[in-house]
Amino acid sequence: MSFERDNIQQMTGYASGEQPDDPNTIKLNTNENPYPASPKVREVLDHFDIESLRQYPPATSLGFRQVAADLHGVRPENIIATRGGDELLRLVITTFVNPGEKIGMSYPTYSLYPVLAQIQDCPTFEVPLEEDWSVPDSFAEAMNNAGVKLTFLVNPHAPSGQLVPTSQVAELAEALNGILLIDEAYIDFADTDATSPALAVASNNVIVLRTLSKGYSLAGLRFGYGIGPESLISPMISKTRDSYNLDAIGQRIAEAALADQKHARESWEKVISERTRVHSELEDLGFNIPESQANFLLATVRAEEGMDNAESLYTKLKERHILVRYFNAPRMRDKLRITIGAPDENDRLLDAIRDLYGSR
Amino acid sequence: MSFERDNIQQMTGYASGEQPDDPNTIKLNTNENPYPASPKVREVLDHFDIESLRQYPPATSLGFRQVAADLHGVRPENIIATRGGDELLRLVITTFVNPGEKIGMSYPTYSLYPVLAQIQDCPTFEVPLEEDWSVPDSFAEAMNNAGVKLTFLVNPHAPSGQLVPTSQVAELAEALNGILLIDEAYIDFADTDATSPALAVASNNVIVLRTLSKGYSLAGLRFGYGIGPESLISPMISKTRDSYNLDAIGQRIAEAALADQKHARESWEKVISERTRVHSELEDLGFNIPESQANFLLATVRAEEGMDNAESLYTKLKERHILVRYFNAPRMRDKLRITIGAPDENDRLLDAIRDLYGSR
Repeated sequence: MSFERDNIQQMTGYASGEQPDDPNTIKLNTNENPYPASPKVREVLDHFDIESLRQYPPATSLGFRQVAADLHGVRPENIIATRGGDELLRLVITTFVNPGEKIGMSYPTYSLYPVLAQIQDCPTFEVPLEEDWSVPDSFAEAMNNAGVKLTFLVNPHAPSGQLVPTSQVAELAEALNGILLIDEAYIDFADTDATSPALAVASNNVIVLRTLSKGYSLAGLRFGYGIGPESLISPMISKTRDSYNLDAIGQRIAEAALADQKHARESWEKVISERTRVHSELEDLGFNIPESQANFLLATVRAEEGMDNAESLYTKLKERHILVRYFNAPRMRDKLRITIGAPDENDRLLDAIRDLYGSR
Repeated sequence: MSFERDNIQQMTGYASGEQPDDPNTIKLNTNENPYPASPKVREVLDHFDIESLRQYPPATSLGFRQVAADLHGVRPENIIATRGGDELLRLVITTFVNPGEKIGMSYPTYSLYPVLAQIQDCPTFEVPLEEDWSVPDSFAEAMNNAGVKLTFLVNPHAPSGQLVPTSQVAELAEALNGILLIDEAYIDFADTDATSPALAVASNNVIVLRTLSKGYSLAGLRFGYGIGPESLISPMISKTRDSYNLDAIGQRIAEAALADQKHARESWEKVISERTRVHSELEDLGFNIPESQANFLLATVRAEEGMDNAESLYTKLKERHILVRYFNAPRMRDKLRITIGAPDENDRLLDAIRDLYGSR
């Protein structure tokens, strides 16, 4: 017999992108930032008092929350610090969605959302995106008609990179009966006025997710945060969060990295510049790619142009120690998601494709 | 209106011990180790490659799990690494206990257990400990009759320090219909043959919790682990755990600290030696204290000896910048839980009490 709950026994866990041991592999598969984190991070480690680790860390990461609040023009009570964005996603479900209640999302979207829903034994309700990956006008109405309690919206969208305009996000928030979680994991790479924190704080039903994994080159640190009205943030801080969810070293590093906006912005600009170049060169090589406001491109492999199908191309690139992401899922099977790397990494990718198919 | 689930709205969050900003306060309230962590921790920070933080950390902490497996003579598949012991407690509930099913525990016990049960919307079932804090012979039968799905047993017991004998633990595990989680947060300070990892791995229903917070002086790091049969460990690793639950720096520190058994054991011996001394001196001052196998003492304040009640004594000590723990709860209101500190901290506590009540 198994002790697992039925919903757990029936589910499959989240499949993250491959993390090869080989240091020569070019990783364009998990949307990591190709540039290093702020040099302030090294200073934090150099000066960290090891003896202080004897004691429990600041329970609610107040120092970090103050830095984040200042950055976004909100109060620390509007911020919850979490172990990566993933912890925030889980906490929003735990706090606000009963087992059996529906969790809404677009299709396609970040593949962790359905996994988290299943852990809470919640059905998912999916609304397909338009052909061009935009959010249909009927999105909120569909969610409301289905009785959705919590809607996840990743913006810029993964895996397409499409940005939902600020005005449409505000309309969605207003129209939805339930909570709207705007997952802005990739927002640092977008050309946007970034009004979502103000929108969230002024609302009663919006939480914005941010992470240091991508924009601050700290995927290895596991640090993110949520921004929202105190009515939504407070119960997650005081009730459902694991007590002491963030360690003392991580809190100090995250504070230093978030405060060093200049360093982070420089990396965003370099990524955006490379995104423009790679987009253009891949289109020249025959791929179809929608405009991306994230640090990745969703490239459609056009078999009619004499290319392999996407899965074969994924495999051939892997044989050349270049990892990109292939999703064996509807609307995704003719596409590869390609993270923007450093210029030399992008060159190796482009060279490999040219080598496979010749210039056009 | 509130978006909170009913069970969340009705609950109160976990109240952790005070963490004062004042560095002159003597903290004998949260069972932290008074001695610093292994010097290997400093080496890890000195040599840590900051650039590697760009990338996601090892997803399942395999390096740490190998070190833990070697230490306990089990396989890495029998180990899950978690963000403190708290994450393991949550994962066991998430994975194995449906909302509405009962979670069993002794009374009194670690006050986080009922909080975690309430988050999952599970009723708790409490079996009172005997007068001397031992586990009654009827414990397993009572749990089974109540239909308990998961039983938490903290051993050594908190807040008394009482050790449940190995033979009784084995009998409990055998007799219980549900899962037994043995919370060994304080086991490093106990005089025991530590057969529980072998017991867990050979069972189909036992998980042992260990933490680096106390025995390895790393409360600030948030690192713990579970030991058990693969049938119980595997679904927590592959399904219910937040993906990338542990950061890259923490994994390396935990590996180094756990591997440095010599350093850790020296701190345990010093704590045990001080425990013996403080126990004896507090008894001389009129307190009743059961034998403790943990790094704290549960001291009954005897009002008939001319002392204040426990709450007043807690307050008077706090005025002298000495924090101990007072629980306003049944069977606890005439008692203080006092962490064993460094010799000078313990002296300051003893001097303060002598100053208040005179020598006897």
